[in-house]
Amino acid sequence: MEPSPREEACFEAGIKFGALYHQFAGTPVSPSSSDSLERAIEQSIENQPHCTSVSVDIDPEELDTTYGYTELTGEHMTVEIEIEYDGRNVTARMATEEGYPLMAVESVSE
Amino acid sequence: MEPSPREEACFEAGIKFGALYHQFAGTPVSPSSSDSLERAIEQSIENQPHCTSVSVDIDPEELDTTYGYTELTGEHMTVEIEIEYDGRNVTARMATEEGYPLMAVESVSE
Amino acid sequence: MEPSPREEACFEAGIKFGALYHQFAGTPVSPSSSDSLERAIEQSIENQPHCTSVSVDIDPEELDTTYGYTELTGEHMTVEIEIEYDGRNVTARMATEEGYPLMAVESVSE
Amino acid sequence: MEPSPREEACFEAGIKFGALYHQFAGTPVSPSSSDSLERAIEQSIENQPHCTSVSVDIDPEELDTTYGYTELTGEHMTVEIEIEYDGRNVTARMATEEGYPLMAVESVSE
Repeated sequence: MEPSPREEACFEAGIKFGALYHQFAGTPVSPSSSDSLERAIEQSIENQPHCTSVSVDIDPEELDTTYGYTELTGEHMTVEIEIEYDGRNVTARMATEEGYPLMAVESVSE
Repeated sequence: MEPSPREEACFEAGIKFGALYHQFAGTPVSPSSSDSLERAIEQSIENQPHCTSVSVDIDPEELDTTYGYTELTGEHMTVEIEIEYDGRNVTARMATEEGYPLMAVESVSE
Repeated sequence: MEPSPREEACFEAGIKFGALYHQFAGTPVSPSSSDSLERAIEQSIENQPHCTSVSVDIDPEELDTTYGYTELTGEHMTVEIEIEYDGRNVTARMATEEGYPLMAVESVSE
Repeated sequence: MEPSPREEACFEAGIKFGALYHQFAGTPVSPSSSDSLERAIEQSIENQPHCTSVSVDIDPEELDTTYGYTELTGEHMTVEIEIEYDGRNVTARMATEEGYPLMAVESVSE
């Protein structure tokens, strides 16, 4: 079957999460540089089609500063993305559960 | 509303495309190294949850060899990904249309 | 032979350029999001050892906006990096020459 | 001062390490997919200018398989790169020391 608008919206949400994660994982980050990285991630992914809002929160407490900085991974951040596709809205979220970053669709509008 | 299994499957398909694209875009590639890159992309993304098959085809004709190699972008490749989630199957595809790489869900099983 | 401090400084400068380029190439960017990306790139790479300063200039005129945004490549930006290693200073620069981004050491202190 | 050929060679070696690391860090990898990833990394970086040889060894013992795969980081691999620039040869190496991946120039020819 062809995908429905709701399914297309979920596909688009997935693309944004995969893109965000694999574009920025590995970026050198420290407590003093995390703010600028949050803004850049949000604004870059919001450029993508059907993406109405991206919110990235990097927890400075999670950043290992033994060497002054660390490399960004999913464990350091919470991300929420809003998609609108053909009148349907999807909210999806990435957060760490049991040490592993999980991406999930939170809700789909009727 | 909560997402249906079909919508979850589409979300997972999107994650794989976003991941594949943004992990490997920018990789130095030439006609002689494109085979090993195709295999590595396929095998790396197949590691991800719910991903049953990834097929990557880099077109050597599309690679600019003015400087011996170029950096991989979506215009160089065609990708097909199969997802299975809770008994539902999704086939999604990326191909270049009018010079721009488009990702789309091709079919979702009932 | 073992590397001299000047050679180590040049090695460090090269690491920063390779890291900057391959971390951020492919990032979705538009004229309205280029400022936050410049700041994030500068601050992330400045975290790395021996790196005293990074300056990134993305030229909005170079960004194709046919689809509203494009993916960052070397052709869009000019970068200058300052390294200090064991009392030696290196200035290195990336700029586009004949359509190809060239990275070069500009000067090494005695 | 302008850089010497030896210093240029060290700069080029650094570029390759930074590129290799930040292009491929974050790639999903498992013991069964590590061979294809090693080959792809080697062949892609060997495309770059002045790079005569790249050897990548991913240690399957280092890969966490709790979730079937993990994301590649410097701790999983040992890398050796050979550069030739204007008749000078540089050998550089990345290996894990005390849990942190260190990149270093091993030798520079006279």
